Amino acid sequence: MFKIPDHQVAGHQASNGMMGPVVDDSGLFFKPLQKDERGSKEVAFYESLASNIDVPDKIRAYFPTFHGTQLIPASDGSGLHPHLVLQDLVSSYKNPSIMDIKIGSRTWYPQASEEYIQRCFKKDRETSSLALGFRLSGLQVHVSKEAGYWKPDRKCFQNSSAEIVKNVLKKFVSSNISADLDAGDLDFDCAFAPSVYGGSNGILAQLLELKSWFEDQKFYHFYSCSVLMVWDKEPNAAAAIKLVDFAHVVDSKCAIDHNFLGGLCSLIKFISEILTNPHACPNKPCSDSNSNCNGDSSDR
Amino acid sequence: MFKIPDHQVAGHQASNGMMGPVVDDSGLFFKPLQKDERGSKEVAFYESLASNIDVPDKIRAYFPTFHGTQLIPASDGSGLHPHLVLQDLVSSYKNPSIMDIKIGSRTWYPQASEEYIQRCFKKDRETSSLALGFRLSGLQVHVSKEAGYWKPDRKCFQNSSAEIVKNVLKKFVSSNISADLDAGDLDFDCAFAPSVYGGSNGILAQLLELKSWFEDQKFYHFYSCSVLMVWDKEPNAAAAIKLVDFAHVVDSKCAIDHNFLGGLCSLIKFISEILTNPHACPNKPCSDSNSNCNGDSSDR
Repeated sequence: MFKIPDHQVAGHQASNGMMGPVVDDSGLFFKPLQKDERGSKEVAFYESLASNIDVPDKIRAYFPTFHGTQLIPASDGSGLHPHLVLQDLVSSYKNPSIMDIKIGSRTWYPQASEEYIQRCFKKDRETSSLALGFRLSGLQVHVSKEAGYWKPDRKCFQNSSAEIVKNVLKKFVSSNISADLDAGDLDFDCAFAPSVYGGSNGILAQLLELKSWFEDQKFYHFYSCSVLMVWDKEPNAAAAIKLVDFAHVVDSKCAIDHNFLGGLCSLIKFISEILTNPHACPNKPCSDSNSNCNGDSSDR
Repeated sequence: MFKIPDHQVAGHQASNGMMGPVVDDSGLFFKPLQKDERGSKEVAFYESLASNIDVPDKIRAYFPTFHGTQLIPASDGSGLHPHLVLQDLVSSYKNPSIMDIKIGSRTWYPQASEEYIQRCFKKDRETSSLALGFRLSGLQVHVSKEAGYWKPDRKCFQNSSAEIVKNVLKKFVSSNISADLDAGDLDFDCAFAPSVYGGSNGILAQLLELKSWFEDQKFYHFYSCSVLMVWDKEPNAAAAIKLVDFAHVVDSKCAIDHNFLGGLCSLIKFISEILTNPHACPNKPCSDSNSNCNGDSSDR
């Protein structure tokens, strides 16, 4: 009845006898409640969101549907354990390409313990979070039926430079890819960029809608929360973004979530540049992003 | 020929024998170069900006005009010292009300020394920077010819809550004010809000124009930089914002300045709320910002 998800790219995973999320075949995702306050905080967030009538429906759609909590057998065989019951975000996709992007240059919140703050502070400085306002936290890209997925270890990219991150975001929507990150940096074709990132319902449009809400909302501050981007080459599977991981959501103190918003705007800029000029030279200075690789930049 | 400025609200001030900026009567502001790398970095920024043809003129207008550097007598009597020669931003105002707002939840940059980072880190946590994405760094509000200016010590407000900051932003554009911050919290009339914050050329419109540029520009990251807001009751003196203090501007590493942008969006939200509903109850929960103080919130 319960099985380990086929397409998890980040977070605790049920393997090697560890407790991790499981899915069923009805489209539900069961996430074990962490035993410290993180578990109860995530439940509290989902309950708050469910009862908050001031969150517009179009924004609510960016969160996984919440079906309460349930005691089910833990994946590590340790017996019954409380789980969040959530929508399985990828159950409707056949061969999903997925990217988990942790948003915000700062993953710690003021009320956290000093030990937690220092740990996050160090990690934010070691990864791309500080420089870019986000870091890649996990990803898989469907290459082909034969080759399967490109699923690099997160250590390979979470401290990447802007150039590498941009290449990963290009590879995510290209057809001429292999399982190698470095090869072909110059000529990812971005063949699927117009249909996945672009268009009135594409990922960029969704990110911009989310951004508008973040410019306004003063309910929640989201720390260590991710934007999940999912798409599939199947014609009926629409590209979508979802917000995931709410164990570190805190009250807003009456200000907008400037930390999340800043990182979101940074991600938006990367994606809009790929749409505007998919073949910009990756090795050109960043201020020169309107030039392209044809050797002719006279029409800048 | 040189004199101490009448209307400086933040930064090093020429008093008690300290070296500080001076002005002349032709509208120039002379800022002493700091002796460590901050001085040379600020000069380098102004020179870079002057030669950067990709910065639009409408954005360039938000920076003080730069007239190079000049050796002039230091205000502390220590002899000739190099000074930045800048536009005196308040020389055209008779009785300017001024607010200096340091933008960004983080005032340190990755390349700084560990000692500098730790000092800024502590201060950002102690002040409102962390929670609000900015802190009030200095201000004066013209009360009346007789009463002069309300010019509180920065210690009184730089670690303020969102409610206090909002009240200061209201008092900045109100006519029924005294020199006391706390008195009358509930009934600042915001009489000048429509003409100062609002309108197609008002402060909000200017902040939004600046925001659009920050969503796009990848030239500079501005740390410890302030937005200066200036206005005057004189009919010919237009409300204006300027960016000031560039001793900690660094290369962008090919990402937008998400730290500055997030803080700017937070400030924009405060000001737009004051314009939308100047008489919102300061003691109401922040999520309830559409209610007002008339006791009737049925038309929310």
